[in-house]
Amino acid sequence: MNKKKIINDPVYGFVSIPSDLIFDLIQHRYFQRLRYIKQVSLTHLVYPGALHTRFQHALGAMHLMGLALETLKGKDIDITAEEEEAAIIAILLHDIGHGPFSHSLEHTLVQGVSHEHISSLIMNEMNRKFNGSLSMAIDIFKDKYPKRFLHQLVSSQLDTDRMDYLNRDSFFTGVSEGVISFDRIIKMLNVANNGLVIEQKGIYSVEKFLIARRLMYWQVYLHKTVLSAEQMLIKILQRAKELTDKGNNVFATEALKHFIDNRVTKEDFLQDRTHLEFFTMLDDTDILATVKMGVKHEDTVLSKLCEQFMTRRLYHVELSNFMPTKERIEALRRAAMNLFKVGEDEVHYFVFTQSVENSAYDAGEGNINILMKDGTIQDITTASDLSNLEVLAKKVKKFMIAYPKELR
Amino acid sequence: MNKKKIINDPVYGFVSIPSDLIFDLIQHRYFQRLRYIKQVSLTHLVYPGALHTRFQHALGAMHLMGLALETLKGKDIDITAEEEEAAIIAILLHDIGHGPFSHSLEHTLVQGVSHEHISSLIMNEMNRKFNGSLSMAIDIFKDKYPKRFLHQLVSSQLDTDRMDYLNRDSFFTGVSEGVISFDRIIKMLNVANNGLVIEQKGIYSVEKFLIARRLMYWQVYLHKTVLSAEQMLIKILQRAKELTDKGNNVFATEALKHFIDNRVTKEDFLQDRTHLEFFTMLDDTDILATVKMGVKHEDTVLSKLCEQFMTRRLYHVELSNFMPTKERIEALRRAAMNLFKVGEDEVHYFVFTQSVENSAYDAGEGNINILMKDGTIQDITTASDLSNLEVLAKKVKKFMIAYPKELR
Amino acid sequence: MNKKKIINDPVYGFVSIPSDLIFDLIQHRYFQRLRYIKQVSLTHLVYPGALHTRFQHALGAMHLMGLALETLKGKDIDITAEEEEAAIIAILLHDIGHGPFSHSLEHTLVQGVSHEHISSLIMNEMNRKFNGSLSMAIDIFKDKYPKRFLHQLVSSQLDTDRMDYLNRDSFFTGVSEGVISFDRIIKMLNVANNGLVIEQKGIYSVEKFLIARRLMYWQVYLHKTVLSAEQMLIKILQRAKELTDKGNNVFATEALKHFIDNRVTKEDFLQDRTHLEFFTMLDDTDILATVKMGVKHEDTVLSKLCEQFMTRRLYHVELSNFMPTKERIEALRRAAMNLFKVGEDEVHYFVFTQSVENSAYDAGEGNINILMKDGTIQDITTASDLSNLEVLAKKVKKFMIAYPKELR
Amino acid sequence: MNKKKIINDPVYGFVSIPSDLIFDLIQHRYFQRLRYIKQVSLTHLVYPGALHTRFQHALGAMHLMGLALETLKGKDIDITAEEEEAAIIAILLHDIGHGPFSHSLEHTLVQGVSHEHISSLIMNEMNRKFNGSLSMAIDIFKDKYPKRFLHQLVSSQLDTDRMDYLNRDSFFTGVSEGVISFDRIIKMLNVANNGLVIEQKGIYSVEKFLIARRLMYWQVYLHKTVLSAEQMLIKILQRAKELTDKGNNVFATEALKHFIDNRVTKEDFLQDRTHLEFFTMLDDTDILATVKMGVKHEDTVLSKLCEQFMTRRLYHVELSNFMPTKERIEALRRAAMNLFKVGEDEVHYFVFTQSVENSAYDAGEGNINILMKDGTIQDITTASDLSNLEVLAKKVKKFMIAYPKELR
Repeated sequence: MNKKKIINDPVYGFVSIPSDLIFDLIQHRYFQRLRYIKQVSLTHLVYPGALHTRFQHALGAMHLMGLALETLKGKDIDITAEEEEAAIIAILLHDIGHGPFSHSLEHTLVQGVSHEHISSLIMNEMNRKFNGSLSMAIDIFKDKYPKRFLHQLVSSQLDTDRMDYLNRDSFFTGVSEGVISFDRIIKMLNVANNGLVIEQKGIYSVEKFLIARRLMYWQVYLHKTVLSAEQMLIKILQRAKELTDKGNNVFATEALKHFIDNRVTKEDFLQDRTHLEFFTMLDDTDILATVKMGVKHEDTVLSKLCEQFMTRRLYHVELSNFMPTKERIEALRRAAMNLFKVGEDEVHYFVFTQSVENSAYDAGEGNINILMKDGTIQDITTASDLSNLEVLAKKVKKFMIAYPKELR
Repeated sequence: MNKKKIINDPVYGFVSIPSDLIFDLIQHRYFQRLRYIKQVSLTHLVYPGALHTRFQHALGAMHLMGLALETLKGKDIDITAEEEEAAIIAILLHDIGHGPFSHSLEHTLVQGVSHEHISSLIMNEMNRKFNGSLSMAIDIFKDKYPKRFLHQLVSSQLDTDRMDYLNRDSFFTGVSEGVISFDRIIKMLNVANNGLVIEQKGIYSVEKFLIARRLMYWQVYLHKTVLSAEQMLIKILQRAKELTDKGNNVFATEALKHFIDNRVTKEDFLQDRTHLEFFTMLDDTDILATVKMGVKHEDTVLSKLCEQFMTRRLYHVELSNFMPTKERIEALRRAAMNLFKVGEDEVHYFVFTQSVENSAYDAGEGNINILMKDGTIQDITTASDLSNLEVLAKKVKKFMIAYPKELR
Repeated sequence: MNKKKIINDPVYGFVSIPSDLIFDLIQHRYFQRLRYIKQVSLTHLVYPGALHTRFQHALGAMHLMGLALETLKGKDIDITAEEEEAAIIAILLHDIGHGPFSHSLEHTLVQGVSHEHISSLIMNEMNRKFNGSLSMAIDIFKDKYPKRFLHQLVSSQLDTDRMDYLNRDSFFTGVSEGVISFDRIIKMLNVANNGLVIEQKGIYSVEKFLIARRLMYWQVYLHKTVLSAEQMLIKILQRAKELTDKGNNVFATEALKHFIDNRVTKEDFLQDRTHLEFFTMLDDTDILATVKMGVKHEDTVLSKLCEQFMTRRLYHVELSNFMPTKERIEALRRAAMNLFKVGEDEVHYFVFTQSVENSAYDAGEGNINILMKDGTIQDITTASDLSNLEVLAKKVKKFMIAYPKELR
Repeated sequence: MNKKKIINDPVYGFVSIPSDLIFDLIQHRYFQRLRYIKQVSLTHLVYPGALHTRFQHALGAMHLMGLALETLKGKDIDITAEEEEAAIIAILLHDIGHGPFSHSLEHTLVQGVSHEHISSLIMNEMNRKFNGSLSMAIDIFKDKYPKRFLHQLVSSQLDTDRMDYLNRDSFFTGVSEGVISFDRIIKMLNVANNGLVIEQKGIYSVEKFLIARRLMYWQVYLHKTVLSAEQMLIKILQRAKELTDKGNNVFATEALKHFIDNRVTKEDFLQDRTHLEFFTMLDDTDILATVKMGVKHEDTVLSKLCEQFMTRRLYHVELSNFMPTKERIEALRRAAMNLFKVGEDEVHYFVFTQSVENSAYDAGEGNINILMKDGTIQDITTASDLSNLEVLAKKVKKFMIAYPKELR
């Protein structure tokens, strides 16, 4: 059977599957599961086109990794065929541990277990099934491989992960502000001192990349209506757990029921493979089915949350540079308790605060290094004589308060 | 509250909501439901980007209707503000009766009830809730309004429905063959003898439109792997019904359970509003939840179908110009009975045939009329001196036979 | 000096120069001349964006050739590094013999000498300068190289020349009808029996390519206003020659003067290198300078033609399936003679006819062969079961008559 | 005759001509001349696609003006039909005074006369020919019309001129960094206190616009190779004038000869209409014809400059944040005098310096005002809480030194 498939991708035109092993990984049910997990969770409630999935993103990042390695080899960087396949596998599987609705429910379904950690567990599992052929990929993923630039292509501030998601999220949201010149950035990649660098003439493209990233954060990822929807979904899951704890049944698939019934920690995952097995059965469908059935649940807190979620009557959100005052919060809580006939212990389902922050560039964490024409290497913030970038490294923090529209 | 929202749409950039009434219709839960029904059903299993929904399509078609009416008014065609809003509503709601996975399950969930019929029922329901303000829209939708060109903009061989779906499906599948010059076609629209016509110089664009449509049929809509997935989903629902009839329980949401447990006909819909109420609660989620849980069902026919569906090990399909011979079918059925240990009455879940047909242009049904420079009106097939189009009116019929890959 | 330049191309994003030799060829003044010759002559008078040049087209076709060779090598077709460079050079230089305004003046400036012939002469000249390093490229260009599929990539009905110009002309005219899926077509290329073939599943893309080509012919290349402008330019050059023959001076650069003063034939080119030397100094500028100065020339025929050309008051053109009648032509000639006070011998500058013809596919001439799934090779017209393509092979002929707007 | 033409524009798809008067202005030879003046002068020598013209830009800006006025009218800003046409005419003609190669030769052909001044002269001339129907447009252009926001749409830091040229120059150069969300910016336009403002939620798009503008400056408009080509063209014209002053003939069209032979000042333009008449006959062709013929001129300074220009062997340019030292300049001058056998008075044709500067946003000059949600108006630099924009207001100055490649 010919496994050298070509897949249509609206973002890049075509994506080719480079080897038989990679074809088999894509066919695996762990990877197929990503077809049913949306890349940007509930963003489609604001940008209706944003229904793309982790599946598409993983293939797109794989495509960019191929281009990046091609460029580096063209500049006589030593990369073996085995390393090439391993780096491609590392990026292909980097998000395989994501649960339903990607980041949104990351700390609600399971306790203290990051998606990166689960990705590692799943990669190990797959490595066993594929007789150790993923070992080098896992080393690259965990930054244990000597050629560190390969890890940096998987995970750093200018990795193929970010390049694909900015591109893809711009494309599907229709927010053209996020478009980046990934092809130019990739052509400017090089390696110096075993580390990934950008050649000096690519500096404007990197600057544009950082700015695009910041704009996407504030216009898309941290859009206040998206935050509102995410928080409501979290509240729905919390309520479902609470009701279950009290012996009140909630409709759920078997796999979701497992995580509603149990408090699963990192240690649990390591000790009992059942947890991982159930986790790999979860996707957006399980959550949505529970929300849909929740609309008619007898518990009014749950049914109200579910009904408003499904009909997109999302909580109103105020986003501001300042923390809302205690008085303001208390007044809203009082109003909610009155209107919805709930007590102190349940009002948090209706009125809640959250802080969000973002900086376009984190100096110190996987820096972006520029290879200057004179051969020196400089951090992007000092290499740019336009000195615009220090500002981008500044963390911007905002505070939100959310409550049902009836309270406005 | 400002209801003149602008919505980002990756296909057209921005779509504006033209009036408060239309804003309220979009907010209604019947319309919000379309967010969860994929436009092209299971096509994403072949073209991973094709996750767009009936919700997006309805907004897109609304946008094109606005442009088309603007063009016609610019050519001094008499269209009142009320008619404009009504025509826009008619296209906005034209697909509101679609069930889960759009066309795929149309004849499986309910018996002998088309989605157009359900659209009518829902529009009537909404008209009551909105105090009769949809009456003109409904007349246009049903072709009962005197200015028949308004109906033709909603439903004919060159309507805003088709223009949007070709555009949108091309965009999200990445199949650039389907791209059409909708803006040029719209600019060439005119009205003659109360009917919609295209001005002569737009003839090439219409020809291109018909060819794009045909190519989309064979490359996307009737792609053999898509057909295979659709048929498997139908078989899953059939099996679920069969098991339920026999008293064997199948996991399902309340709404889906209603249609699995009951055989609902057109008459039932008219006599008992419960059916419509349950129907408007259904979307893709309900079906997928049942399929996912089916993977572990004790019935091996159901579990096998569900597992292969979820892991995308779809049946192999042969598509040909000729009906497969009885001998060939029988041999495959024998092999399946042996391999899967099933009898005559169940082998149809594993081996089945289907015929598909398509013509790019149906002469006689909502013809495309060309307004020639000399003032006469001609059907597109005779107006084009390139005489290419008669071929497009020819029906092409193909036959498929599908069976599990294990039988190859 | 680093000669591995990357050039921005709005059509493909980036075009890389693959070798030092190719860089040097591009730097040569014979090639730089192409910067000043518009690809589609006077088309910009109808589609203002269409100012792109032979220079851009040659680079674009070079880019596609690179992709095509990459694809074939990926399918284990034996192509040496030397052959790769030679094929790229062949396509890079295939149009180097074009004179000002590409095809428009091909038979006006020189007599009976095609641009392909001059391309050959120039390639030979360059081969001498580059010490024979173009010999293999010239063999491929002239179809004398054993691996004939390389020639077919340069010149056949599905060559990289056509793929680039359809793409490029669509892009710059803004006529989206001409967009082709060049990336898909290229990925479907293969070699069988030493000839270029398309794999069966690429059949729709090829069909789309042929249809796009036909539409581009009738909407762009043979657009009646473009034809009108071209004919006016030819008439201006003819008049300039006529006046010069009669001893009446016409403003011109030295190089253009050479071709106005002399009637240069194919034999002349071979016997005296002066002709080629002057030819390689000509570009669109020389012609336009003469036209501009012609506006104030004392000869009223010349000045009228030049003035109307520069202010875009182009002759009216009627394009029809039938030859205009003798009576009609004669009546227009009479009217022109009266209005412009010219005699029988000069009226052809004001009223003239021309026939144009085109078929999208020329069966028999560099056929497009399809590699069927069963291993057989079929001509595209028989391979397509949609049998649409026979129509495309039909030659369509049209007749034009042109005359000043004053005569309408 | 139908003057409501639709023009294909690759950037916006279609551009409609809104009125008969505007159609006639476009047909006028003063406007048709813009077809032959490239928008970005010699940029095509670096970005080969950048051959677009002032003609296209003027139509594009007209298109955006139409969209902007449509938006403002939709927000109940009072704009009469007459004002609408006048504002569109003002932007259509704003660049009509540009000479050959746009800005490059602005101070070489004529002395102390800006293109804006010549635009005014030509508009007045046209106003006479069109019987005063351009009077309101001229008032808007000169900021003498009471509704000042109309002028701001023509000329300010966020006018339709800049929006079109950034868009268009990005498109044709292929530098995707310059792409701006013009459609979103336009939808955010509003009027407050008779001045143009942007609504608060458009702030990110404006920020992106300013950043795109800055990147375009440094990557395109001030690209060092483009600067080199421009300076060489200036030197060629200077040399031609010098030679002519000394009685040595230089090939030129009549119109160009006029400006080579005479030193034409602002006063001359006002006193003698001959100058304007000749000016309106000039375009890129005249200059290029002189350069081409200069290749074989007997003066070695001129012929060397022309030959290197035509074969794109452009001077090497060093661009730096610091002025080159006197010693460095002197050393290069010495070397040039030796190599090219020229004296002190001619070495400036071979070695020269220039300073360039740019700031993305000029606080104080046609500020960009933001209409905050609370109703106040703030300058963009203070309105953005991301405080990134102060940096953009900083002027960046660079220094270049240019010399023939032989001196490297």
